[in-house]
Amino acid sequence: MAKDLSTREENYSQWYTDIVTKADLAENSAVRGCMVIKPYGYAIWERMQAELDKMFKDTGHQNAYFPLFIPKSFFSKEASHVEGFAKECAVVTHYRLKNDKNGKGIVVDEAARLEEELIVRPTSETIIWDTYRNWIQSYRDLPLLINQWANVVRWEMRTRLFLRTAEFLWQEGHTAHATREEAVAEAEQMLRVYAAFAEEWMAIPVLRGVKSANERFAGAVETYCIEALMQDGKALQAGTSHFLGQNFAKAFDVQFLSKENKLEYVWATSWGVSTRLMGALVMTHSDDNGLVLPPKLAPIQVVIVPIYRNEEQYQAICDKGREIKQMLEKAGIRVKLDDRDTQKPGFKFNEWEFKGVPVRLAIGPRDLENSTVEVARRDTLEKEVLQMQDIDQKVTHLLSQIQQNLFQKALDFRNSNTFKVDSWEEFKAKIEEGGFIEAHWDGSPETEQAIKEETKATIRLIPLDGQMEEGHCVYSGKPSKQRVVFARAY
Amino acid sequence: MAKDLSTREENYSQWYTDIVTKADLAENSAVRGCMVIKPYGYAIWERMQAELDKMFKDTGHQNAYFPLFIPKSFFSKEASHVEGFAKECAVVTHYRLKNDKNGKGIVVDEAARLEEELIVRPTSETIIWDTYRNWIQSYRDLPLLINQWANVVRWEMRTRLFLRTAEFLWQEGHTAHATREEAVAEAEQMLRVYAAFAEEWMAIPVLRGVKSANERFAGAVETYCIEALMQDGKALQAGTSHFLGQNFAKAFDVQFLSKENKLEYVWATSWGVSTRLMGALVMTHSDDNGLVLPPKLAPIQVVIVPIYRNEEQYQAICDKGREIKQMLEKAGIRVKLDDRDTQKPGFKFNEWEFKGVPVRLAIGPRDLENSTVEVARRDTLEKEVLQMQDIDQKVTHLLSQIQQNLFQKALDFRNSNTFKVDSWEEFKAKIEEGGFIEAHWDGSPETEQAIKEETKATIRLIPLDGQMEEGHCVYSGKPSKQRVVFARAY
Repeated sequence: MAKDLSTREENYSQWYTDIVTKADLAENSAVRGCMVIKPYGYAIWERMQAELDKMFKDTGHQNAYFPLFIPKSFFSKEASHVEGFAKECAVVTHYRLKNDKNGKGIVVDEAARLEEELIVRPTSETIIWDTYRNWIQSYRDLPLLINQWANVVRWEMRTRLFLRTAEFLWQEGHTAHATREEAVAEAEQMLRVYAAFAEEWMAIPVLRGVKSANERFAGAVETYCIEALMQDGKALQAGTSHFLGQNFAKAFDVQFLSKENKLEYVWATSWGVSTRLMGALVMTHSDDNGLVLPPKLAPIQVVIVPIYRNEEQYQAICDKGREIKQMLEKAGIRVKLDDRDTQKPGFKFNEWEFKGVPVRLAIGPRDLENSTVEVARRDTLEKEVLQMQDIDQKVTHLLSQIQQNLFQKALDFRNSNTFKVDSWEEFKAKIEEGGFIEAHWDGSPETEQAIKEETKATIRLIPLDGQMEEGHCVYSGKPSKQRVVFARAY
Repeated sequence: MAKDLSTREENYSQWYTDIVTKADLAENSAVRGCMVIKPYGYAIWERMQAELDKMFKDTGHQNAYFPLFIPKSFFSKEASHVEGFAKECAVVTHYRLKNDKNGKGIVVDEAARLEEELIVRPTSETIIWDTYRNWIQSYRDLPLLINQWANVVRWEMRTRLFLRTAEFLWQEGHTAHATREEAVAEAEQMLRVYAAFAEEWMAIPVLRGVKSANERFAGAVETYCIEALMQDGKALQAGTSHFLGQNFAKAFDVQFLSKENKLEYVWATSWGVSTRLMGALVMTHSDDNGLVLPPKLAPIQVVIVPIYRNEEQYQAICDKGREIKQMLEKAGIRVKLDDRDTQKPGFKFNEWEFKGVPVRLAIGPRDLENSTVEVARRDTLEKEVLQMQDIDQKVTHLLSQIQQNLFQKALDFRNSNTFKVDSWEEFKAKIEEGGFIEAHWDGSPETEQAIKEETKATIRLIPLDGQMEEGHCVYSGKPSKQRVVFARAY
């Protein structure tokens, strides 16, 4: 167990916060609910951004940038959207400060009140669809496939680093299509992109499905989502992709002339993932020794630590370290040689272990003589001494093994914490233990709401690839054709 | 002259706006003073970001992210900073909307007033130095070399796309150092980085220097800057790097224990460039036919346009086009094959010319027979027919020539519009013509202010590499040791 780190057993919530803050991922700022993303945390986010951005571009999307502020009146145009978003938000009312006459420092200049208040964007459907009206006239202008990397603000009362913050970073895709089918296909495609990213890059297995009406995005016709299971048995929504129908096109009057020369409303999707994924990453893989990072996202994949007793050894081992570093870098590996002479090897071991570096190479005087290196892997904490020869190939292989192992471990955890439940008593008992519960549901919002009130469990999703199966609702006993997935969630 | 484009001669300002909007770089949004950066414009910005980010990382900087909001009181802590920034800004006063009781839609909930107003960051020195207080204890924590990519808001009354907008995108570096010398060296290093980027990537020659006291950043001890000359003879500040002394460390109480075990205030720099550079790019190279882009920043470097009369020719030529595209892409060139069969070649020629694509390849039936291709370059509008053989090498060479030519052309323009002036009469006459004026100045803010009031010219910079030369102030006649550079500026 790492120093100053709560264990998951003791206090899961504190363990999470300890890792995020002490591994230098993020911290709370002086502004309530807003976080500072520290360089090490931001480097992980940059790697996530880079890969997602590539996936978006490979599927034909382009980036653009829309205003931070949204006129208040825009929110009223889509009825369910305003209910979902316009309430808890940052409102800009003035555009100037002035020196107080009575010497109280700077105060808001009441003479500089905005005619219409501006909302700091909680999501950008409204301002974007207001813009699309001028961009779309004909079917030739479609599809419009645009993504934006941006900050957004939702005034959350209880905040937690990465998981729920007043300001967060995200990407939001907003696409426009000529047909319903094309828009649905786009929403489904982006869900597949998110699932592939979560599984192949973050090593987080996810369930794919659609939300029940209660849990849908405000303004969506269908919300597709991926859901992951955290180590405390709670679910985390890791990404959503919405089929918006013609709701926003109608609200903002976006019509196009079809091939058949008919004026029609445009079909829409939107989809997003956020810095919340950083929270999922931490909670899926980390242990009581600190952060564990999948190699594909680790800013440092390999750390080299020299072990020495005197200056002469220090020089010779650092030389060897630099040589290995170069060799590994040539193989495309991100390497740090920790040649600080102000810290002992033990301190360095702990530090890099805590920060989740996937592979540690230690080189001592005997290694120099024998042409060996001690290789430690962060996921299993196993160590072995290897011959230096072909070390680049060995490390490349090991990194790929670690990536796979982390995914498999998380998958095994999810599988052993997913339960088919058929009675209400069992449901209530199981939900206390955590995990995904597959149960029948009668399809009514009332039943869903009653279950939520009694157990705090929500329907995480209705599986996309779920098998049809006749059954009876675990709560109401009414007939059901398919199990849905329940859990308590972040 | 391109259709619907004002010429520079007719109306320079309208010409600029026409290019920005009609080449699909950006447009005004529904929110006063805020722009929408369109995909084509954003793709250029992304290329600029990517290269700058690499340059920052190569010089040891890391990215991080700090909050969008800054508590009002933070601005009061650094006296000159508040004067410079806190006045014209977006102020968040409330955090909730509600449905109006009288059915007037949604209104600001007066019960949700913030205890302390939040300012949408106009720049982040205050929030960052408030954070650094906890990050810096000892000389071992220094230097701290951090950059942030972010949006900022300054409530400008008169706005112009890219050049002056209420919200803009930028990067802001904020570094902390143990000594004055180190901080000065950092500020100077980042000026060199900006100058290299402007000249090598944007093909914009820049003067390097420091600002006079009047023109310094609010809170800086010294402001280094690069200045470029636009085609209308006005100067544009293209980047600034500030040596902040210990001003922010003192304002936010950031001290460190030195190697000598003494408690000392930390030395600071900050430096930034913004989407304003997009404006400089447009105004430096473009002509009356539209946008002209330097190849290194062009999202599309080469466009291939097939010329055909019938379906059979269309297929054969498109096949050839795809083949050339692949060959060029293999050489690292960004290529678009415009195989739309809904538009005529002439339309395509105009469109890509207007959008500034550096090289156009046209392939017709005779080219197929003769194994040739017509190559047109955007900078000179010259065309020639080349043999298809080794076309990848030929185009690579041409792109590099165009990059150099654009720089040289801009440099020639600047040189022929830079004047040494020694009398006040001449100064007043020359400033009307535009260009950089090198003149002696007595060093007093009063004289600088008087010159500004009479001529609208400001001191753009005091050259860093300027030769010492005895002379007399062009305005006051008092002695001077060095010429400074005056101009009217954006």
